[in-house]
Amino acid sequence: MVYFNCDYTEGAHPKIMDKMAASNLEQTPGYGTDAYCERARALIRKECQAPDAAVHFLVGGTQVNFTVIRAALRPHQGVIAPETGHIHVHETGAVEATGHKILALPCGVEGKITARQVEEVAAQHFAGSMPPAHMVQPKLVYISQSTENGAVYTKAELEALHGTCRKWGLYLFADGARMGYGLTAQGADVTLADMARLCDAFTIGGTKCGALFGEAAVLVNPELQQDFLYAVKQNGGMLAKGRLLGIQFETLFQDGLYYEICRRANALAYRIAEACREAGFAEYAPSPTNQQFFILPDGALGELEKSYHFSFWEKVDEGHTAVRICTSWATTEENAEKLTRDIRAAGTAR
Amino acid sequence: MVYFNCDYTEGAHPKIMDKMAASNLEQTPGYGTDAYCERARALIRKECQAPDAAVHFLVGGTQVNFTVIRAALRPHQGVIAPETGHIHVHETGAVEATGHKILALPCGVEGKITARQVEEVAAQHFAGSMPPAHMVQPKLVYISQSTENGAVYTKAELEALHGTCRKWGLYLFADGARMGYGLTAQGADVTLADMARLCDAFTIGGTKCGALFGEAAVLVNPELQQDFLYAVKQNGGMLAKGRLLGIQFETLFQDGLYYEICRRANALAYRIAEACREAGFAEYAPSPTNQQFFILPDGALGELEKSYHFSFWEKVDEGHTAVRICTSWATTEENAEKLTRDIRAAGTAR
Amino acid sequence: MVYFNCDYTEGAHPKIMDKMAASNLEQTPGYGTDAYCERARALIRKECQAPDAAVHFLVGGTQVNFTVIRAALRPHQGVIAPETGHIHVHETGAVEATGHKILALPCGVEGKITARQVEEVAAQHFAGSMPPAHMVQPKLVYISQSTENGAVYTKAELEALHGTCRKWGLYLFADGARMGYGLTAQGADVTLADMARLCDAFTIGGTKCGALFGEAAVLVNPELQQDFLYAVKQNGGMLAKGRLLGIQFETLFQDGLYYEICRRANALAYRIAEACREAGFAEYAPSPTNQQFFILPDGALGELEKSYHFSFWEKVDEGHTAVRICTSWATTEENAEKLTRDIRAAGTAR
Amino acid sequence: MVYFNCDYTEGAHPKIMDKMAASNLEQTPGYGTDAYCERARALIRKECQAPDAAVHFLVGGTQVNFTVIRAALRPHQGVIAPETGHIHVHETGAVEATGHKILALPCGVEGKITARQVEEVAAQHFAGSMPPAHMVQPKLVYISQSTENGAVYTKAELEALHGTCRKWGLYLFADGARMGYGLTAQGADVTLADMARLCDAFTIGGTKCGALFGEAAVLVNPELQQDFLYAVKQNGGMLAKGRLLGIQFETLFQDGLYYEICRRANALAYRIAEACREAGFAEYAPSPTNQQFFILPDGALGELEKSYHFSFWEKVDEGHTAVRICTSWATTEENAEKLTRDIRAAGTAR
Repeated sequence: MVYFNCDYTEGAHPKIMDKMAASNLEQTPGYGTDAYCERARALIRKECQAPDAAVHFLVGGTQVNFTVIRAALRPHQGVIAPETGHIHVHETGAVEATGHKILALPCGVEGKITARQVEEVAAQHFAGSMPPAHMVQPKLVYISQSTENGAVYTKAELEALHGTCRKWGLYLFADGARMGYGLTAQGADVTLADMARLCDAFTIGGTKCGALFGEAAVLVNPELQQDFLYAVKQNGGMLAKGRLLGIQFETLFQDGLYYEICRRANALAYRIAEACREAGFAEYAPSPTNQQFFILPDGALGELEKSYHFSFWEKVDEGHTAVRICTSWATTEENAEKLTRDIRAAGTAR
Repeated sequence: MVYFNCDYTEGAHPKIMDKMAASNLEQTPGYGTDAYCERARALIRKECQAPDAAVHFLVGGTQVNFTVIRAALRPHQGVIAPETGHIHVHETGAVEATGHKILALPCGVEGKITARQVEEVAAQHFAGSMPPAHMVQPKLVYISQSTENGAVYTKAELEALHGTCRKWGLYLFADGARMGYGLTAQGADVTLADMARLCDAFTIGGTKCGALFGEAAVLVNPELQQDFLYAVKQNGGMLAKGRLLGIQFETLFQDGLYYEICRRANALAYRIAEACREAGFAEYAPSPTNQQFFILPDGALGELEKSYHFSFWEKVDEGHTAVRICTSWATTEENAEKLTRDIRAAGTAR
Repeated sequence: MVYFNCDYTEGAHPKIMDKMAASNLEQTPGYGTDAYCERARALIRKECQAPDAAVHFLVGGTQVNFTVIRAALRPHQGVIAPETGHIHVHETGAVEATGHKILALPCGVEGKITARQVEEVAAQHFAGSMPPAHMVQPKLVYISQSTENGAVYTKAELEALHGTCRKWGLYLFADGARMGYGLTAQGADVTLADMARLCDAFTIGGTKCGALFGEAAVLVNPELQQDFLYAVKQNGGMLAKGRLLGIQFETLFQDGLYYEICRRANALAYRIAEACREAGFAEYAPSPTNQQFFILPDGALGELEKSYHFSFWEKVDEGHTAVRICTSWATTEENAEKLTRDIRAAGTAR
Repeated sequence: MVYFNCDYTEGAHPKIMDKMAASNLEQTPGYGTDAYCERARALIRKECQAPDAAVHFLVGGTQVNFTVIRAALRPHQGVIAPETGHIHVHETGAVEATGHKILALPCGVEGKITARQVEEVAAQHFAGSMPPAHMVQPKLVYISQSTENGAVYTKAELEALHGTCRKWGLYLFADGARMGYGLTAQGADVTLADMARLCDAFTIGGTKCGALFGEAAVLVNPELQQDFLYAVKQNGGMLAKGRLLGIQFETLFQDGLYYEICRRANALAYRIAEACREAGFAEYAPSPTNQQFFILPDGALGELEKSYHFSFWEKVDEGHTAVRICTSWATTEENAEKLTRDIRAAGTAR
């Protein structure tokens, strides 16, 4: 069986494993105060062209999301998010568990929300005819780059969101669990520097982009920087041997490894998508990134599942199922090749 | 100006004021341990035919809702509610502030959810193909009786909800801020005894039904009874001079005053609704209770608003606005009569 | 049986009851937006010589405490409080339930903490040798005026606390559930204007000082004012018929009623204390306010408890028990007189 | 500079690093559902002689503590803990941030609490003369094995705590961040099987005992097992590449590696302690484990700090400072030897 169900089935990129092994017996101070973390922070600040950004390394995606949101908001404030947003659907209510409501917006199959939608919510709250204190005050807009369904916000979309957020005093926060795939997607026009210019905070995912684990929180807005380390500790995100995170992010951001491995994964995903199209499978959601979403006839799916794991996404109708097919830094050329052949065969066989 | 915008513009029913004045200099123990509270609890248990129910008196509606929900749930559990439910829209995220997600369901203009909808959510969570621990576990179903839009659940609807809740181990909780109007509505077939038989917990509203303030929480399911007094205290709902609540509920449930005043308010509301229909105003939502929802031409509305306050509900289109018109125990015959005349006139005038 | 166990055994001062009855059928807008509340707020601002203070009326003491504290703090911040502070001992962990640790300080029998103690905690945190992010950041100092044990902070003590709080960026918050008794105590040198000058926020208690219920939150520091109404609603403190609070506080602060009734209660308490001393009962805690704390031989106590309720405070030793004896606006001259006679008799009888 | 300040200055035991490298390109399912985790769980259950215990792997110590506690308690319940307990002092109020008060007990320099102390708190709450609902209900007793000051609970002490907890319906929870050092300490008479027999839940620390990171939560009491995976996810403790935890714990519990490396660290610590005593340094706290606490003259300390890092613990008096000196699996024979020589020299030099 070969796993194409997600992008975290293997360990870490070999360069990371090597550096971790090489440094294993070194002594360093704990909690992210070591030189590896310092260098990794500097690399990320440089890449973001944000010399004053605060960069913190946490372990996991759910954790970094609720830690940033909880630290940013007062108790009566809430989060505007797409209704398919990871925090709304797949994090066991972690944001609500910290006390904050998510104001979910319809978002279509791409999983994006628009500046116009945010404008409507904000205007209704701050300039509407209802007494606002009876309702949660929107304060932070959550998006994912790339989204849960593989789409990528364009620079124009982000600029529009940024403008609306500035207008109403909202924070714009981007969940970058799959940032690498988004930045290197075909047709994408956004860089980390753009993210830093347009968002108040965002994360750069390690777990799904080559690391064993780890998410970098980049806090650009100074309001979000103060005392953030307390939040990391209080929410269980402070790793005792913090250098493990520093080593990983230093490796990823030295010599462009992060981009290189994500671009390669995207390229393999395009070949698989191409095979799906050739096989006559309908696209479930258009994706220029490492996650591909196709609707397979159940017969073809059954055949393929003898050799491959995919992620079940949705039962579309009686005879069809939408699945997610993922690549990652670890996907081998051979496995990708074999899968495309088998997809084409499954298509033909119908 | 006459207020028809809501059902809490006056103080309390005169019988309540009298008893409060008469007992003012009496000395009683605090925190609801007095004889007035004891008698009120007994009256409510009797009315509910639920001799083992725990009855607690709290001050306000938002408070009693989040106190019951917080006490009932473990941190990973959430609330199924209609998307127009009071807890979802008009309580400033109080439920989320206690850590729990609301899983909002579409509900139409009546503000009701169905057993089938609950079944779908529960089945998808407990018997679906996703790993459930990544999602909030549905555990409590929140409904309002009567609903925010004036509708009343029938016995058959409640029985179906009850059955589904039993099947999946969910609690059924009814917010009865306007319970009195619901129980005495034309065509309603539900009694407090039915509520107690079919719900795990529900509230009986005082504030909107004749009292100065106060909501009774009726906890039928023994699982919800244990240590509830701690929850009342911790969440700020324990009134030092608890007898004030006891006096009010004792008065309301002696000799059927609660039903009598709500039935009368409903009857006045029907006359106003009749006038609206005669005036050619479209019904916004069908309501057999004290809240009436009609769509008024902006001209007619402007005319009426010179003499009356209504609640803005929604801008329906360029020239029309939906409003809520409320009656209560305190609505006078004259004011109701005058309003119906003016409505008919406003209709004709168009 | 006569109750001297606490100061909330009766209803409200007759002037309040009268005004409540007189206004009962008036129609007013809800949620504290009525003219009674406006006037009450103006009276309090004037009394505090704080024209820019925000004044909000909530129902209960636990509620107003946790609402102010929750609104003031970020999640990693905590409260410095005396170890006998009401929030630390008798509010079922309501402050912790909103997420904030209480850093309790030893305080002796008077229940006061000193500027020096606060200085030590703050210096240790902000200027100590431990990494501060691993510990809760002190941000708010909670005191009670008068304290749980009846003592009153002097102006000099408050000025010292104020200075230390300013130095370290801490908020000073005074729980004034028994403010009236503190301000009118023999020897007290503090006015509401002093409170407003020296505290960032404080409450003025109604429940224990003549009202049916109600606590006024006076937010002097503008940082604490923003969006506070959301906090009131979210935490269940917004009364639908908000005028009930306005009526009560307007009555209390017109013509000095608040001071008058508390001063009178203090005076009765002094006579009871005098009787205790004459009876040879040891003082448990020195109190110039309406709560008196004496250590009674169990024989004398048993005798008195045939006619009176006191509050058990502590078992001091084999044969002695500390009790609290309270007066209030409602204590009658006769009952106080009778009690002093019986105390003297119980003392003699030993 | 050689670090003796804590036990997490290096990476992981080489056997762990080897296995992690060897398995790096394997594909496994995520979130702890892989075969490594399964085997590690089985090994731990066996070692605990608790075939029905639930074993979950989380990343960090603060995280596992608040996750277990939050999942175990209802909102009005609190934690009894020693006042030097890690959750009370060094976790940034993480337990309170989940809503629960810590009822801190004095504990002396060893950091232990006794069954008698727990009995007093429980009896006062459940059988005292105050209305219990006004106070936090004690429900869970938190201890550390070994404690923050290096002490180890004996079997008799644990049995007494267990008995008291059973009597009052309290959970006994042991924080085992340094479990390995406790189990293998000279004179210790407790095994993991004893822990499982006497505690309702406990953790087995990896981070400080040879792993890169990771804490195993062993939930013995079935009440604590239900739905715990939701809690792990909601609180950010679910590692996507969960096998990393499985690999580490499997390695530690195969062939007794966990005990072997901790016993060796303890032995090195004893040699350092012996040197301290020979040098005439006073013991700050008696410790049979890898953390040693001595009071050094500031002159000797200054000399040693040219070559070594220790942890500052407390300024004892004008000229003396208490420090913590730690060993771990990674402490080399040479470094330990050199330190003992330098300590003796520093002692002589005075």
